[in-house]
Amino acid sequence: MKYVYFFGAGKAEGHGEMKHLLGGKGAGLAEMTNIGLPVPAGFTLTTEVCDYFYKHGKKYPKELAGQVKASLARLEKATGKKLGDARNPLLVSVRSGSARSMPGMMETILNLGLNEQSVQALAANTKNDRFAYDAYRRFVQMYSSVVIGLPKEDLEHKLRAMKSRLGVKDDTEVSAEGWRGLVKEYKAYFKEHTGKAFPEDPEEQLWGAIGAVFGSWMADKAVTYRRVEKITGLLGTAVNIVQMVFGNTGDASGTGVCFTRDPSTGEKIFYGDFLLNAQGEDVVAGIRTPMHLDEMSKLMPKIYQQLERVRKLLETHYRDMQDIEFTVEEGTLYVLQTRTGKRTPTATFQMAVDMAKEGLITKAEAIERVKAEDIERLFYPVIDSSVQRTDLLRRKLATGVNAVPGAAVGQAVFTAQEAEAWAKEGKKVILVRRETSPEDVGGMFVAQGILTATGGKTSHAAVVARGWGKCCIVGCEKLDIDSEQKLMSSNGRVVKEGDWITLDGNEGAVYEGKMALTMPTLPQAYTTLMQWADKVRRLGVRTNCDTPTDARKAREMGAEGIGLCRTEHMFFKDFEQPEKSAERQLAIQEMIVAENVDSRRKALAKLLPFQRRDFIGIFEAMDGLPVTIRLVDPPLHEFVPHEHEKQQELADKIGVDVETVARRVAQLHEMNPMLGHRGCRLCITYPEILEMQVRAIIEAAVDCQKRGIKVLPEIMHPLTLDRKELKILEVGTRRVAEETIKKAGVKLNYLVGTMIELPRAALMAGEIAEVAEFFSFGTNDLTQTVMGLSRDDAGRFLPDYVDAAKAGVFPADPFQTLDVAGVGQLMEMAISRGRRTRPKLKVGICGEHGGDPESVRFCHKVNMNYVSASPFRVPIARLAAAQAVLEEKAAKKKKKR
Amino acid sequence: MKYVYFFGAGKAEGHGEMKHLLGGKGAGLAEMTNIGLPVPAGFTLTTEVCDYFYKHGKKYPKELAGQVKASLARLEKATGKKLGDARNPLLVSVRSGSARSMPGMMETILNLGLNEQSVQALAANTKNDRFAYDAYRRFVQMYSSVVIGLPKEDLEHKLRAMKSRLGVKDDTEVSAEGWRGLVKEYKAYFKEHTGKAFPEDPEEQLWGAIGAVFGSWMADKAVTYRRVEKITGLLGTAVNIVQMVFGNTGDASGTGVCFTRDPSTGEKIFYGDFLLNAQGEDVVAGIRTPMHLDEMSKLMPKIYQQLERVRKLLETHYRDMQDIEFTVEEGTLYVLQTRTGKRTPTATFQMAVDMAKEGLITKAEAIERVKAEDIERLFYPVIDSSVQRTDLLRRKLATGVNAVPGAAVGQAVFTAQEAEAWAKEGKKVILVRRETSPEDVGGMFVAQGILTATGGKTSHAAVVARGWGKCCIVGCEKLDIDSEQKLMSSNGRVVKEGDWITLDGNEGAVYEGKMALTMPTLPQAYTTLMQWADKVRRLGVRTNCDTPTDARKAREMGAEGIGLCRTEHMFFKDFEQPEKSAERQLAIQEMIVAENVDSRRKALAKLLPFQRRDFIGIFEAMDGLPVTIRLVDPPLHEFVPHEHEKQQELADKIGVDVETVARRVAQLHEMNPMLGHRGCRLCITYPEILEMQVRAIIEAAVDCQKRGIKVLPEIMHPLTLDRKELKILEVGTRRVAEETIKKAGVKLNYLVGTMIELPRAALMAGEIAEVAEFFSFGTNDLTQTVMGLSRDDAGRFLPDYVDAAKAGVFPADPFQTLDVAGVGQLMEMAISRGRRTRPKLKVGICGEHGGDPESVRFCHKVNMNYVSASPFRVPIARLAAAQAVLEEKAAKKKKKR
Repeated sequence: MKYVYFFGAGKAEGHGEMKHLLGGKGAGLAEMTNIGLPVPAGFTLTTEVCDYFYKHGKKYPKELAGQVKASLARLEKATGKKLGDARNPLLVSVRSGSARSMPGMMETILNLGLNEQSVQALAANTKNDRFAYDAYRRFVQMYSSVVIGLPKEDLEHKLRAMKSRLGVKDDTEVSAEGWRGLVKEYKAYFKEHTGKAFPEDPEEQLWGAIGAVFGSWMADKAVTYRRVEKITGLLGTAVNIVQMVFGNTGDASGTGVCFTRDPSTGEKIFYGDFLLNAQGEDVVAGIRTPMHLDEMSKLMPKIYQQLERVRKLLETHYRDMQDIEFTVEEGTLYVLQTRTGKRTPTATFQMAVDMAKEGLITKAEAIERVKAEDIERLFYPVIDSSVQRTDLLRRKLATGVNAVPGAAVGQAVFTAQEAEAWAKEGKKVILVRRETSPEDVGGMFVAQGILTATGGKTSHAAVVARGWGKCCIVGCEKLDIDSEQKLMSSNGRVVKEGDWITLDGNEGAVYEGKMALTMPTLPQAYTTLMQWADKVRRLGVRTNCDTPTDARKAREMGAEGIGLCRTEHMFFKDFEQPEKSAERQLAIQEMIVAENVDSRRKALAKLLPFQRRDFIGIFEAMDGLPVTIRLVDPPLHEFVPHEHEKQQELADKIGVDVETVARRVAQLHEMNPMLGHRGCRLCITYPEILEMQVRAIIEAAVDCQKRGIKVLPEIMHPLTLDRKELKILEVGTRRVAEETIKKAGVKLNYLVGTMIELPRAALMAGEIAEVAEFFSFGTNDLTQTVMGLSRDDAGRFLPDYVDAAKAGVFPADPFQTLDVAGVGQLMEMAISRGRRTRPKLKVGICGEHGGDPESVRFCHKVNMNYVSASPFRVPIARLAAAQAVLEEKAAKKKKKR
Repeated sequence: MKYVYFFGAGKAEGHGEMKHLLGGKGAGLAEMTNIGLPVPAGFTLTTEVCDYFYKHGKKYPKELAGQVKASLARLEKATGKKLGDARNPLLVSVRSGSARSMPGMMETILNLGLNEQSVQALAANTKNDRFAYDAYRRFVQMYSSVVIGLPKEDLEHKLRAMKSRLGVKDDTEVSAEGWRGLVKEYKAYFKEHTGKAFPEDPEEQLWGAIGAVFGSWMADKAVTYRRVEKITGLLGTAVNIVQMVFGNTGDASGTGVCFTRDPSTGEKIFYGDFLLNAQGEDVVAGIRTPMHLDEMSKLMPKIYQQLERVRKLLETHYRDMQDIEFTVEEGTLYVLQTRTGKRTPTATFQMAVDMAKEGLITKAEAIERVKAEDIERLFYPVIDSSVQRTDLLRRKLATGVNAVPGAAVGQAVFTAQEAEAWAKEGKKVILVRRETSPEDVGGMFVAQGILTATGGKTSHAAVVARGWGKCCIVGCEKLDIDSEQKLMSSNGRVVKEGDWITLDGNEGAVYEGKMALTMPTLPQAYTTLMQWADKVRRLGVRTNCDTPTDARKAREMGAEGIGLCRTEHMFFKDFEQPEKSAERQLAIQEMIVAENVDSRRKALAKLLPFQRRDFIGIFEAMDGLPVTIRLVDPPLHEFVPHEHEKQQELADKIGVDVETVARRVAQLHEMNPMLGHRGCRLCITYPEILEMQVRAIIEAAVDCQKRGIKVLPEIMHPLTLDRKELKILEVGTRRVAEETIKKAGVKLNYLVGTMIELPRAALMAGEIAEVAEFFSFGTNDLTQTVMGLSRDDAGRFLPDYVDAAKAGVFPADPFQTLDVAGVGQLMEMAISRGRRTRPKLKVGICGEHGGDPESVRFCHKVNMNYVSASPFRVPIARLAAAQAVLEEKAAKKKKKR
């Protein structure tokens, strides 16, 4: 039985696919070695050892000791060093590593192999006493607390006491003497508490560390985590024992971080920092200013060439930009770690497109690399690049969970009431709360951004803010918020009510002061990649919009038509000539207050030219593309004034008494307007509304067509629930349309269809498709009715339903990401029944979900013809639609195997 | 080819099953002849003649003339009379008759065969000149208008002119001379307009009438009717030629009407009226007072014996009570017509039970004979039997459509506003409208009954009133309503605002004045029949009730448990000790206003003893039967005061400031409370409510069980939509229940289940059944969500959706009769998915539909375990459940064949 896998000197016994046996880290080290990277050598004890250990009363398999001994010998040979050697001692790190990372597992032990003898060799070799004894005290400290379990606090206390004795503040100020003294103290403490001397024998140290790793597999925290996350099937943890390397042994040494491409622009340049004669922590501490890679290339040309080779190797192997940590020890390059590098959205597009063009990845992979958030961030404000990096570092208050991207600037307020009051005065505020609750929703709404100290991505604040696309940072645990005193503090800095702060929702960072924000510019690579996506996707992408301006914008964003044009918005506002809005309002109100068909018709006749003009504008903007126009949908009470004065005003204008107006308004009141007299029910009761709207649509279409504009109107009836009902509407629609077309003496194609937004409509889809030429899922209302959830009211409890830490009933807010299990099931049923009746039935979606990537995937899966999203979400839908195709292909390929 | 079927002298060539060929009437006459009834003889020309006629350019098949001639000869032989004979002329009637009755078909031609010669013989034989010439002028008049198509008005005008010349008012005052003169006038008019003399030849008359019958098959009205009603597959109409008989030929003649059993009590006595020397119309006219059958039995003992024989024959043959019209012509009995007799609800039960006991019908048939309305009427008030029949006749204003049964007394008002104003003053009103509209709903609600001049059973008034079980008569077209003048008139009588009127919703009759109403007493036969039904049915029948009193009542009505006990009603009212209601209200309001868990718990602790006492009362009443208790369901805003003063009062009582109360109340406001924070969502947010309620239930159960009462509690969570959600509630429920049981040191069985009242719950039923031990369909809310219809608001448009004369989208109000196509489909899916997970899953329904017969049939069909209805609808559900079994058996039998 093989329990130990060696890697080093360009060859490894394991490889990258052996995660189950070697753990993630062990497999990674083996893989890196195999592809020729100069990885420090070492060996891995397999997860089977761990399994055996727990199955045999915490005993190791008898072969283990021998295999460890042999591997250690190979390691000593490969490095030319010897564990515990008085002249050239081998030092190693010991780390845990299972196939899945989890909290509670043992932390790293560094510098193992140091003892009173070898530490002197290290000092001599590095010509740095201070470094050697610092390394030694670190090892003793870690070993004592992590392996033996002595209280960390006691050890830390001794360190602080020593510094205070010496009158220094930072660790860097402590001399070699100081560290040496501390080691002594630690060892005395060790003996006092364990009754034994600190182990001087490196092999004893090694077995102690191995035992601690295996012991941590059953630590409470790790066991709980595996239970909660339902992680099963793992054998245990592996143990990685790796040669230590030092970048601070002199001027032939150093340490650095580099990216295979520029992580902020995406440019294909080698980008990184290097510190001569330094350890990794010196880079992080930021005390010495590192040199750029090109400087380093002059200083250490050979190392730089090696690095360039590493860069190529890594990009070729991992086929993505890598973030590399390296150390040069006495002229030898070691790659310590490599991982896929973080990047800005702009860089994401640039790299994806470049790599595809280079042939490093396929176009499909380039498409898969981009996430919805990357697109989204391109359209949200960010902190302007004029703000200096140093300034950012200096002003950073804390970092939390980046719940909603974008950036926001405002004055801090600490209660929702104050947020509302300040906003009323025209002030820009950031609402800061420990956590938000339903009572805070009003204040959240008026705030520029939201910041909380607790909660994760499914917390109340995150869910509500995401619904509005409002910058939000949650779980900023370092913040100490005192809403009574109206202040918060972090890192010793205090922010009081009214102080300006800046949130970076992309990074989850909170800054003091007011920073300049800017909108990112769209990179050329964005356009290229979206074109590639368009070629791949099968799903059409339309937009929801109601004005010619929005329609033009949406076309720019790649919309291939309008999936939802809400006509009632036009009732209230003249988007082209705002001064005419009052005239429209009056006409619609007169129509509603009318007590008989004749006066209703009269009022509608006034509205007709307005609507016709609106439609002409939209048809012009959408020349050549289909436009789905939904007839009036909201309950009429939304259009009438509810205050006495306004009612009097209306009464005067249309020449009836105020009581008539008041009575009519009172009659329109509904207990549950969402389920009331709205949608197509209005046109069943008042067919004259349908007549006016259809006439306006068709007259506009005829007008445009005569001027050479290609018009494809699709007339859509909302909220239908039965074939018979839709038939009445369809007959009415076609009658008016045909009359109008005949009168104009032209030919015009148009479709008549329906929204599917009630469960009954979905259930009866087979019959409804006898009449409807197309379906458009109104998933907002469908979600409301299928779940019995009023979107307006759900704020009171829905966040608890989404929050995994509370009820956690839903994986996501069902108004943002389609509830596939429930609502989706019904939609799938409706599509299959509808197409059984009418195989060519056109099916789309026009709820908010049309712009949500997960939901778009579902729409693709159930073979819709298109999704329709708000203009700014059109690119997200285009990308998601393409990714859905690629996923489908990958799944098919997998199945074939 | 046989085109003519003869019947007479005790034998017929056709029979009752030959409707397709002989039409309904012809088949009926053949059947009656065959079973030995003394039916007048005659013959039928088949529908195939009609078919041939239209397929061959309106020509008859050549065999027809000969077959008619032969049949006529047989008829003459059977009757001993001869067509057109100068001494003993045969007179016949000619009628149309297809397999389905329809409007537009030719009316009857009577007395065919009369001419100048035969009329004299008729006069001589009946010794009644006046009668003979009246009969003659009727024939000429009918023939001229119906067969030849001369304008009816002209002929009527001549009749009126003649009467005015003679100075008489009623037809009965016209002498033989007068009629003779009119015949002359008619004939002159006939010649003038047709250019031909009125046919004297009876055979010519006969062929004319036959032609008119076949012609009427293609009359516009008939053709339209067949198209609208989608009647297809009929060959055409048949023609029935039947011997005329006369009851006014002297004292050996007469005419009568009788019922084989008493139609008002159901008693098995021969019940009827007879008029000596009279025609049928004399009985209807009501001028002469008829004798009872027992008087007649002394006068004409042989005829009476014959009638008794007919009675037996008919009941044996038709197996139901018959309503018989008969005539005695010169000592010979002729049965002219027999049909199933109308009866009171009491009589319905009596006859069904008696006939089953006699062995005339099976118990199953007895059960099938009773309708839901029959039961319903037994529980609605009726006009007291102390009100004289003559009084009823005298005071009857009009008759309309009996839309909702029961009787109502009140003062007439003519607008909804007045109804509301009068009712506020404590007056009882009947709302009278030409038709009702949504604006009238308030007035309709406060009225005792509703009366409209227009509309049918699906009109707005009918649908709304039926929802409330409120007496309603619609389509009373004889009423002339003037709501401006606030009066109505009918039959020359005027009813003004404030005048008392009485409605009989069973008969659809409107009476002047205030009549005494009474509740019918339950007949013994009712109990018997319901017991039979109980033995047959498979579905359990439970009740929806919330108080011990209602629980006892429901048990009396046959409830086998409680299917829905709404706990929130108890929050507001102490049904046993009403003076304690305020205390409860305060506790619940305190709980709602509470700002943290502790104060909520404190308030709930006050509520606990009240709830426990309520549950004890209900468990006692339901000893041995299951009780399903639903935890709190409505949104909390329903429990708190909305007016400032009441809020102040509450604030004072619970010791917080009024702003806190007002703020909390404002927070509770919802846009769509139906889809808001209610149902089990409350217990997800406030688990302490669940804890209190579960504790109260289990403590009450333990208390009862200790006293020897058998308790079967079923704890039900409302409005769930997901397995995870229900799991949280179930865990909470079991934890509290087990704690309580353990503390009491007893064993107690209880179930935990859920309502299925959201589409998502139905869709996810398979998963939800992993947790739920039972499902109860809340079809009120399920209908609201599946259809997107708020029951509170639908009054504005739903009546149009139900009214067949308007949109007619639904066959019935979906809140009364389950929408099987939509809602039912989803329920069926939920049941099958639920039972796939948990085969023994108990399934019931507790919406209003549980008391609707059609819906109960559906519940049976989909294999529910029980339905639950309000106490008064329990018997209806029991009956419908039994009928469902019988229908199922019949359908199976049919299938086997």
